[in-house]
Amino acid sequence: MKGFKFAGIHAGIKKNNLKDLGLIYSDTPCTAAALFTRNKVVAAPVILGKKKLKTPLCQAVLVNSGNANCFTGEQGMSDAISCSDKLAQTLNISNDLVIVSSTGVIGAPLPMERFDKGIPLVVQELEEGKEKDFANAILTTDTCEKISFSSQTIEGVSFTIKGIAKGSGMIRPDMATMLAFICTDAEISSENLKKCLTKANNKSFNRITVDGDTSTNDTLLALANGSSSVKIETESDIDLFQKELDKVCFELARKIVIDGEGATTLVKIVVQGAKTAEDAYKACDAVAHSNLVKTAIYGKDPNWGRITAAAGRSGAEVDQDKIDLKFDDQFLVKKGKWLGPEAEQKAAAIMKNDEITICLDLNLGNCSDYYLFCDFSENYVKINADYRT
Amino acid sequence: MKGFKFAGIHAGIKKNNLKDLGLIYSDTPCTAAALFTRNKVVAAPVILGKKKLKTPLCQAVLVNSGNANCFTGEQGMSDAISCSDKLAQTLNISNDLVIVSSTGVIGAPLPMERFDKGIPLVVQELEEGKEKDFANAILTTDTCEKISFSSQTIEGVSFTIKGIAKGSGMIRPDMATMLAFICTDAEISSENLKKCLTKANNKSFNRITVDGDTSTNDTLLALANGSSSVKIETESDIDLFQKELDKVCFELARKIVIDGEGATTLVKIVVQGAKTAEDAYKACDAVAHSNLVKTAIYGKDPNWGRITAAAGRSGAEVDQDKIDLKFDDQFLVKKGKWLGPEAEQKAAAIMKNDEITICLDLNLGNCSDYYLFCDFSENYVKINADYRT
Repeated sequence: MKGFKFAGIHAGIKKNNLKDLGLIYSDTPCTAAALFTRNKVVAAPVILGKKKLKTPLCQAVLVNSGNANCFTGEQGMSDAISCSDKLAQTLNISNDLVIVSSTGVIGAPLPMERFDKGIPLVVQELEEGKEKDFANAILTTDTCEKISFSSQTIEGVSFTIKGIAKGSGMIRPDMATMLAFICTDAEISSENLKKCLTKANNKSFNRITVDGDTSTNDTLLALANGSSSVKIETESDIDLFQKELDKVCFELARKIVIDGEGATTLVKIVVQGAKTAEDAYKACDAVAHSNLVKTAIYGKDPNWGRITAAAGRSGAEVDQDKIDLKFDDQFLVKKGKWLGPEAEQKAAAIMKNDEITICLDLNLGNCSDYYLFCDFSENYVKINADYRT
Repeated sequence: MKGFKFAGIHAGIKKNNLKDLGLIYSDTPCTAAALFTRNKVVAAPVILGKKKLKTPLCQAVLVNSGNANCFTGEQGMSDAISCSDKLAQTLNISNDLVIVSSTGVIGAPLPMERFDKGIPLVVQELEEGKEKDFANAILTTDTCEKISFSSQTIEGVSFTIKGIAKGSGMIRPDMATMLAFICTDAEISSENLKKCLTKANNKSFNRITVDGDTSTNDTLLALANGSSSVKIETESDIDLFQKELDKVCFELARKIVIDGEGATTLVKIVVQGAKTAEDAYKACDAVAHSNLVKTAIYGKDPNWGRITAAAGRSGAEVDQDKIDLKFDDQFLVKKGKWLGPEAEQKAAAIMKNDEITICLDLNLGNCSDYYLFCDFSENYVKINADYRT
C-alpha cells in the first residue's frame, strides 16, 4: 500500500520489553474520519482527537499501550498535547495533522520521559510494510496482533484498504469498542469516508461483545491518502469501497472476538423471524451478553433453555410456542418443543468446534440481526482479577 | 407463627438424597399476593399460578427443586395441574387454594411418578416450625437455606412475618428474581398485601444482581392467614406492616447475594448526587452488572477506573470532573481526581472484608439509589459451565 509507513517499538511504558509505542505515517496528508467511544468518562486523547478532527485531515497517528491516559485530569490533557507537539516537531509537520491515542490502565499519569525518548526512536523506525510492528505495539491483553486487508480495482487501477486493531476485553458494541486504524491509498472525501466508516462499524465493531463493558478510549480512525490515484467519487465506486471496507472491519471485529479474554469459542448468534429490527437486535444483544449462555458454551453444553430465557427477557416480542433454535444445522427446538436427548447430543458434538452459529427463529416476522461473541471461561476471571497486579 | 405448617422431603427429583419437595400449609385459607417473572419465556407453574391468583386466596404451596417445568409445552401445563389436583385431594381442600412452583433445569418433563409418591409423604411431614426443611427443599445451586423473620406488636398483640427464599444464580432485578415465600399471621386484604409486597420487592429483590440473568420461574408469593388476630387496616398499621415486610424481604435479598454463585464479597453500590432518580438507578445497574468491576472486586483490586467507566456508559448524566468515589470511608477519587497510591492501598485493605460499600457521588443533583451485588470468581464459571453435567 503506497505512501503509508508504520513502526512499533518498546519505549518502556509496558514491562517485559514488549512493544508499546506505535506510529502510522503517511507521506502526504490524508482525509480522515473517526468514531469514538460514547462513554461519558473519556480519555484525554479522545477529547483531543475529537477537537483536532473538526478539520478532517491527518498525517500521523501515535498510539501507546500500557496507559490509557484516562481520568488524568488537566495533566492528562497537557501530556496528550505534549506528545502530539513533540511528534509534529520530530516529523516536521503541523501538529494539526497529528492524532494521539492511548490504551491500557486507567488513572495513572503518562510517563512523559518515556515518550520524550521514545518518539524520536519510533520516527526513526518508520518503514513501509512494518504494519506488524505497529499492530504489536498497540496490544494490551490481546494474545496476537490483528491485521486485515482487501484490494480492489477500479478502471484497471487497484487500491488497498488495510486495517489494524487491538481489543480483547472491555468489548461491547456502543459506537466503536477498541482501537482500530484503517489506512487506504484510495482518494475519498472525509464526508464519504465518515459515511462508509459509520456503516462498516455498525455491521462489525457494533455487532461484537466479549464482556459487555465499553472502554473510555475506543477509537476507530480511517485515513485515506489517495496515493493509488484511485478516486472514490461516483455512487458505484462508493458502493465498491464500502464493500471492501465492510470486509476489512468485519475481519478485524471477528479477530477481536476470537482473541477475547479467556475465549475458547467464537459464536455467531443469528436472530431471525423477529417482528421488528429492534427486536432482532435486542434478542441478539441479550443472548450475547448472558453470562449463563457464555459459561454454558464454555462447558460445551447446548443449554438452549438459557438462550431462550435470555431472548425472553430481552424486551423483544417472543412467543415461546413459536421458537425454533438450532446449533449450526442441528435443530434443538422446533415450534417451542425440545427435540430430545439425541438432538442435544448432536448439538454437543457441534460445540466442540472453534466456531459455531446459533440460530434463533422467533417466527413472528421478517427481521433479523446477528452478533459475534465468545464464551466465558475461568481464564477471563483470572485475567481481569489480576489485571493491575 | 400461628397456623402455618411446613415440610420438606427428598422425593427423588434431585440426586444425592437432597430434599427436593417442599410444602407450606395454612390451617385456614390465606389472602394472597404474588409477583412473577417478566420474562416472556415462562414456566408452566407461573402461567398456572397467575391464573389461580385471579382469586387471591391460597392455603397450600407446593414447591419442587431439580426441575423448572419450563419449556415443557402442553405436557408441562397438564403436569402442573396434576400436581395441584393431587395435593388438593390429599389435603382435602379445593384445588383453587393450591399454588405450585418449580425451580431447576429448564426443558425436561416433570418426573410425575416421583410427585405421585412424594405428595402424600410431604403432607404427612407437615409440622409447625419446620421452615428449615422447606427452605432446604427449594434450593438449587444455593449453598445454604435462606430464612428471615420479623415480629411487631399492634395494640399489645404481636404478629410475625416470615420469609423463605432460594436463589443463587440467574439473579437480576426485573420484578422478582428467584423463589420467595412470605407468610404472616396478620390479617390484611389481598389488595393491601399486593401493594406492600410490590413496594418491598422494589427495595429488595429488585435491587440485587448476581449474574444479570433473569429466570423463567421467578415468583414472590405472600400469604396472610390472620391467625394472630392482628388486623392491618389503618394507614399507620399498613406503614408498620410495610416496614416489617421491607426488613424481611431485604434480609432475604441480601442472603441471596451473599450466597451468589461463586461469590466471595457482598458489595453495596450507592450512587448519590445523580440528576434524576433514573440516572441513579442506571448508574447502579451498570456498575453492579459490569463483569470487569466484579472480577476486580474478586481480585481485591480497588479498580475505580472500571467503576467510573461503567457509570460513564450507563446512560446517566456524568461529568467525570465532578465524580467522588469512596470504598467504605476511604476516598479514592475527589472531583474527578485520583488521590494516589496511598489511598488506593487503604481501599485495597478494605476490600479484604466480606462486605464493602462503594459510594459514587456524581455531584450533579440530589437523587440516589443502591444495589447489592457480588463479585465474580472462577467458581461462578465452573458452577455454570458444568450445571447440567
